[in-house]
Amino acid sequence: MRINNILVVSPMFKELQTIIQKEKLKKNFRFMAEEEFTQEDLVWADALVAFNLKSNIDYHHVQWVHSLGAGVDRFLFKKDWDESVLLTRTICSFGQRIAEYCLSYILKDLQFHDPFEELKQQKKWYPLTPKLLNEQKVMIYGTGEIGQTVAKVFANFGVEVYGVSLSGKEKEFFQEVMTVKAHYDRLSEMDYLINTLPLTELTEKLFKENIFHRLSEAGFINVGRGASLDENALLDALDHHYLRFAVLDVFTEEPLPEDHPLWAHPKVLITPHISAVTTPAEGAQCFLETLRNIEEGKPLHNKVNVKKGY
Amino acid sequence: MRINNILVVSPMFKELQTIIQKEKLKKNFRFMAEEEFTQEDLVWADALVAFNLKSNIDYHHVQWVHSLGAGVDRFLFKKDWDESVLLTRTICSFGQRIAEYCLSYILKDLQFHDPFEELKQQKKWYPLTPKLLNEQKVMIYGTGEIGQTVAKVFANFGVEVYGVSLSGKEKEFFQEVMTVKAHYDRLSEMDYLINTLPLTELTEKLFKENIFHRLSEAGFINVGRGASLDENALLDALDHHYLRFAVLDVFTEEPLPEDHPLWAHPKVLITPHISAVTTPAEGAQCFLETLRNIEEGKPLHNKVNVKKGY
Repeated sequence: MRINNILVVSPMFKELQTIIQKEKLKKNFRFMAEEEFTQEDLVWADALVAFNLKSNIDYHHVQWVHSLGAGVDRFLFKKDWDESVLLTRTICSFGQRIAEYCLSYILKDLQFHDPFEELKQQKKWYPLTPKLLNEQKVMIYGTGEIGQTVAKVFANFGVEVYGVSLSGKEKEFFQEVMTVKAHYDRLSEMDYLINTLPLTELTEKLFKENIFHRLSEAGFINVGRGASLDENALLDALDHHYLRFAVLDVFTEEPLPEDHPLWAHPKVLITPHISAVTTPAEGAQCFLETLRNIEEGKPLHNKVNVKKGY
Repeated sequence: MRINNILVVSPMFKELQTIIQKEKLKKNFRFMAEEEFTQEDLVWADALVAFNLKSNIDYHHVQWVHSLGAGVDRFLFKKDWDESVLLTRTICSFGQRIAEYCLSYILKDLQFHDPFEELKQQKKWYPLTPKLLNEQKVMIYGTGEIGQTVAKVFANFGVEVYGVSLSGKEKEFFQEVMTVKAHYDRLSEMDYLINTLPLTELTEKLFKENIFHRLSEAGFINVGRGASLDENALLDALDHHYLRFAVLDVFTEEPLPEDHPLWAHPKVLITPHISAVTTPAEGAQCFLETLRNIEEGKPLHNKVNVKKGY
């Protein structure tokens, strides 16, 4: 594959430009925001580096698309992908970022941040004993790059970590990995559920009654994709004490519309899709590394299996 | 040392009794609450197991006092201790408990829990990028059992961990350990300060202007002892932006009086001395282990140096 003309389309194109130009590569670059980008740019380009593709853009002219995010559902989910086009994705500190995000909310719960905040408002000294991480059981959906890093961080604290994946294949840091079908019977033991799955036909609306109704007041964290969750089923599960709380970073519609009932629910915490951000430095680094590997014919550990969708 | 009669004085004496009696030791025990306990019990006893001693009690009749807490300032600070009496203290999961407590509040800060909570109230989608632990510098006061466990947990996340101790002796998991005198110049770099020090003549009101005025909006966590902190200096440092926030688990006066200005300060988080609780199971286990070591003449890793005060 010969890559000469590279088109970088991103809200952070200026920052990426600064970093990439320092490398003084013998390539032609165009850097721009998504609004400016046209079919002509795409015809010129051998490679496209982007978070997102406008739906009316025909990308089959390029040989390589590199996603600046970890999730590639915007390219593949319910879309046709020309398999002759190489698709790669960004893998950087996402796992660590998501692990710290999840850990922060589980510790907030175990350390009683909210009750102590309330007691402070009342100027009341009322001891509650925080719970230790090593007394907790966590079910992580997805045992790939991200799920495994989350599992590692929690296992280091002595948490009992279980995994759910398509294959149910054992992975390091998980006490046990189960298929979706096999995992239902274990749900009632779990203290927390964490979704890190990509959005595919198989994970669309995976989180609904048949998972929630087996829980005993667990906490639910969604750092995967919003469309993997049935948001109405979630609200119902919170109201009926199957779930104690939910921390949501991703939503079916983003930004979450102002009139959406999730905003107002007292047991829901909302963050605006920030659990795994690509910083310009990390985004540029991963792109440059992938470019080098392509040119040197090396194996690409971040190549997307477009059939599987991740 | 021959220990036959053991007096256990604690608010959780019933729970301790249940656990200790299961061991069927050939010893005589008396279990009671602090209010019931008299000089006569003390004359009868060879050993006293307690959180606290009433100030008017003469303890020199017993050969061994075992503290159910980690801190022994209530026995030693500004008191005379008969050095022929062995003093041991509880060492159990305190380090882990305190580490998770500190981690929870630092992650709360790095992950912007409060700003996202506020944005949720306003139904506003406004992305902020959480900061990673591996970009942080933390100064831990105290490099003993507890400080070192905290250092280990943070170092595992790539945090740059510095230590302050009397000796300034290097310890594992600390990038560098400094004496109090030597550490002032490094304070401006620090993102967070954590106090785990015992209360002694040398640590009384250690945290005052000469530390705070060198900080650049750091966070301060006190899990050591309240009397090591000048509470007025803290309030002033918060108002003058030397400190960004304070998380306090210990206070000069406990319970913290209802009219104390710390309750009302918006940048102060208050927890009621719960960061390192002794559970009945762990308290009993540590006492039983110490008793076994005494009777078998083994070294006591939890023996208090009554001159040093910890």
